Amino acid sequence: MERVNMKKGRKIVVAVDESEESMHALSWCLSNLVSRSSNSTLILLYVKPSPIIYSQFDAKGFLFSGDVIAAMERYSSALVNSVMERAEAVFKNFSNPVNVEKVVRAGEAKDVICNTVETLEADTLVMGSHGYGLLKRVLLGSVSHHCAKYAKCPVVIVKHSPSN
Amino acid sequence: MERVNMKKGRKIVVAVDESEESMHALSWCLSNLVSRSSNSTLILLYVKPSPIIYSQFDAKGFLFSGDVIAAMERYSSALVNSVMERAEAVFKNFSNPVNVEKVVRAGEAKDVICNTVETLEADTLVMGSHGYGLLKRVLLGSVSHHCAKYAKCPVVIVKHSPSN
Repeated sequence: MERVNMKKGRKIVVAVDESEESMHALSWCLSNLVSRSSNSTLILLYVKPSPIIYSQFDAKGFLFSGDVIAAMERYSSALVNSVMERAEAVFKNFSNPVNVEKVVRAGEAKDVICNTVETLEADTLVMGSHGYGLLKRVLLGSVSHHCAKYAKCPVVIVKHSPSN
Repeated sequence: MERVNMKKGRKIVVAVDESEESMHALSWCLSNLVSRSSNSTLILLYVKPSPIIYSQFDAKGFLFSGDVIAAMERYSSALVNSVMERAEAVFKNFSNPVNVEKVVRAGEAKDVICNTVETLEADTLVMGSHGYGLLKRVLLGSVSHHCAKYAKCPVVIVKHSPSN
């Protein structure tokens, strides 16, 4: 995990994941929130499943072997890199200067996002309305709705549709 | 109802009501979304209950008289003026130029807000997380969560807390 600088200025957390929608949310954020202030810090937050979610039993009730767990860990890391690379590609389309930090946490997405926003004292949380589809995540949309309700800052929910 | 100009530019709908939180949402919008572009049009949307809601029966099952209904209409109009005056007071704290339009509609808040956003082809909807408490409105928070789910544009939900 990269360290988040606690310097003064507006802190905007963008929850990113494998979904196209989260990249659209990032793009919306860059167009609408970041460019107006060069003192903004944009924090890309990726939440991967807690290791415990896939380290216990497979579908037939057998314990996963160490090899399987290691492969899953590698897959998870590759996924983080892939998401962050896609995010960087989104940044390249915008010319406004912005400080970017990357944070990777593990756990239940909705709780981790709310906790991270609070810990970082973020000014705004931006996220897609769906997403968080890796492995056995929860029902569509429930992460964003949970965060809209419980995150301790303004929350922007960005849908990916032809109209926006 | 004042007519909304359909001129080109970013259209931001702010749902305002009697709540302190909706004024805070307006203030957040002015600080974070409007000032970056002088071509923004900010549309203040107030939704009052449909006349049918309070034109039928009182708590004892009797039909309201015409006088009572007329008094309620007057109260409702006074409330609209009061909310818009409060909104104007919020504007006075901001120096950035912004085009402002006022729209008053009647009906179920969550449906009217979503429909208005769609009709106006708004770019963003901003609202408080609570509010809409006039007469017998629905459960706290359900309006904003409904809009976050169904409005056809990015939705910003702004909570009023000491931290934002």
